[in-house]
Amino acid sequence: MALIVQKYGGTSVGTPERIQAVAERVLKWRAQGHQLVVVVSAMSGETNRLIALATAVTADPDPRELDQMVSTGEQVTIALLAMALQSRGAPARSYTGAQVAVRTDKAYTKARIEHIDVERMQKDLQSGRIVIVAGFQGVDDEGNITTLGRGGSDTTGVALAAALKADECQIYTDVDGVYTTDPRVVPQARRLERITFEEMLEMASLGSKVLQIRSVEFAGKYNVPLRVLSSFAEGGAGTLITVDSEESMEQPVISGIAFNRDEAKFTVRGVPDIPGVAFRILGPVGQANIEVDMIVQNVAADNTTDFTFTVHRNDYRKVLSILEQVSRDVGAKEVTADDKIAKVSLVGVGMRSHAGVASQMFATLAHENINIQMISTSEIKISVVLQEKYMELAVRALHTAFGLDSVGVV
Amino acid sequence: MALIVQKYGGTSVGTPERIQAVAERVLKWRAQGHQLVVVVSAMSGETNRLIALATAVTADPDPRELDQMVSTGEQVTIALLAMALQSRGAPARSYTGAQVAVRTDKAYTKARIEHIDVERMQKDLQSGRIVIVAGFQGVDDEGNITTLGRGGSDTTGVALAAALKADECQIYTDVDGVYTTDPRVVPQARRLERITFEEMLEMASLGSKVLQIRSVEFAGKYNVPLRVLSSFAEGGAGTLITVDSEESMEQPVISGIAFNRDEAKFTVRGVPDIPGVAFRILGPVGQANIEVDMIVQNVAADNTTDFTFTVHRNDYRKVLSILEQVSRDVGAKEVTADDKIAKVSLVGVGMRSHAGVASQMFATLAHENINIQMISTSEIKISVVLQEKYMELAVRALHTAFGLDSVGVV
Repeated sequence: MALIVQKYGGTSVGTPERIQAVAERVLKWRAQGHQLVVVVSAMSGETNRLIALATAVTADPDPRELDQMVSTGEQVTIALLAMALQSRGAPARSYTGAQVAVRTDKAYTKARIEHIDVERMQKDLQSGRIVIVAGFQGVDDEGNITTLGRGGSDTTGVALAAALKADECQIYTDVDGVYTTDPRVVPQARRLERITFEEMLEMASLGSKVLQIRSVEFAGKYNVPLRVLSSFAEGGAGTLITVDSEESMEQPVISGIAFNRDEAKFTVRGVPDIPGVAFRILGPVGQANIEVDMIVQNVAADNTTDFTFTVHRNDYRKVLSILEQVSRDVGAKEVTADDKIAKVSLVGVGMRSHAGVASQMFATLAHENINIQMISTSEIKISVVLQEKYMELAVRALHTAFGLDSVGVV
Repeated sequence: MALIVQKYGGTSVGTPERIQAVAERVLKWRAQGHQLVVVVSAMSGETNRLIALATAVTADPDPRELDQMVSTGEQVTIALLAMALQSRGAPARSYTGAQVAVRTDKAYTKARIEHIDVERMQKDLQSGRIVIVAGFQGVDDEGNITTLGRGGSDTTGVALAAALKADECQIYTDVDGVYTTDPRVVPQARRLERITFEEMLEMASLGSKVLQIRSVEFAGKYNVPLRVLSSFAEGGAGTLITVDSEESMEQPVISGIAFNRDEAKFTVRGVPDIPGVAFRILGPVGQANIEVDMIVQNVAADNTTDFTFTVHRNDYRKVLSILEQVSRDVGAKEVTADDKIAKVSLVGVGMRSHAGVASQMFATLAHENINIQMISTSEIKISVVLQEKYMELAVRALHTAFGLDSVGVV
């Protein structure tokens, strides 16, 4: 008998019929003797409906009142799921974030969980009840309702699993697991049986948007085994996200290929190579609340340096105007910019113990006549920046070269 | 400067535009220097939408879960009203029933208020904030959300006014006050400036459905001045419902005429006139959860008695089948029943000090050739039962006879 936390997103509970289906699924797990805590989101469309109401009243709704209102979305779903379970003879009880209580700080609309009271849930579980908890929401120490920000239901699920020391946290989504890469780009992409938290973080931040990155960090920090499953397809085992402790012989070198075409690249050339120059260039960018992704610096022979970095493509114009000023201040020779780039990354913990991954990557791209503009490496990831138009070709070639293509039918 | 509790029903807050209008009205009162606590219902249609969702999931929803879900209706409205006020520069804060806290018993879907914590509201009021509270809902001592039953927002308003010792509780509705009778039946019906709690109770229970009867009882018990106002018409003074302490010279004998065509009448004839027979007849009716309204008993010469009573017309068939059994048990001669009756009642505290009201009533009806089937009197009310088809005629004739018709244009 295991204690399992399941989380169902808005699409999975989007209609009364789908809520019935979730109830059936929960009962299947219960029939196997497991204890269950179920976290649900608002029915799909509901949060947007509520926000539209707020916007109809004022262009700039107060964050406290917005949370007070938006949190009702999940409150409806938990009650409906409890009813569905009860109508099938299963004892179930729903709790809002405040009732559990999921205690957070006071950062309305993006609160962080500080503590979860588990006594009430544990008592319910011991008495045989299925516990249903509203995702995405909590309560501050004054009883004000807070929300964790969009996608926060995943975080609620993981945090509950951590607090309850659950055996597994299952995240039900509209995909049946984490894939070696986006199947829309590479039809041969394979579902991964397992992936490590670290790999998942690299995959998620690079565009494989299966899970909210915060929930993966959380799960890694508290060592909560996390499983991504389809709430529509029956019987799949999904992908288990877990610590990198059982490295098997069969561990592949590369787990997946992530990519991202939302970036823009800037190069500041001929900067005097003196201490503090990186800060003088990137400081103003950070102050403008712009997140910098990759940073590469090369020293040239003439005691100057070339400084290249990438940001989100939406910030292209803003960064350009910042750099005009900055490049004068630091005495740079020129600034070049390119918003037609893409980033492609190999991710895999196997890299740690395998040499030659980078050279195989570069050889593969060279063979396809794809020029590499920028390279950045970490312990479990190699990223390259290339012209956007080559992105799909690069991903497909690398997917095949590193043996990720599925054998037979997907 | 007064402390005023205002309550706005579902129609008054039915759209974002109407919520804006409520905000404007609240601010007008505030501009006069008053402190304000505002109670709101769910947007009209919202509670029904939620109940339909529950019904789509199960035919018999668990009451706790139903309250958990249905209470979200008001939670949305309070936040929207707070936003509307804030966007006009007024400090405002919304509270759910649980946040205030409105403490109730555990009778889900029909809970009764036991206590209201006022500290938080008082602090807000002192700091200049407008306090907005969700009507219709509370919380039990374990943190479970309860609801007070349909129309319970009026009760919330009155209970808050009592707990806060407010100067007045204003109930905004879609009518501009309490009328001498239903204007749809008597176009000359007048709005009453004042009415006593007792009169209002008699009017309400008899069909003038302006206020929830429970809230009037509550207001009477705690001596909270209650005012019924229109949330759509501007500037009207509405009707003040208050204790019968300032009986003026001009106090009319009759305040209003109530009527009700939802009843059915039963007569059990030739019942042996022995102690306990009333209970033997009405006991089984009560056990079947059927509410009995009027009861009249006449003793005949032959030591038998005729026993007549009325119930809601919906219970007609049920009562008929109960009486078939009961009349055999008590040895009655016959049972007659009539579901084509109506009840017409004169209501007025002035009756206490005026003789001849009953005879004037009977004379008026006789003059119109309307036969009286049943009479029942209380200290401030005289009710007669007559054939349903004469109801409107009776009400109009009595309205004129007792000087209630408005002078000039309504």
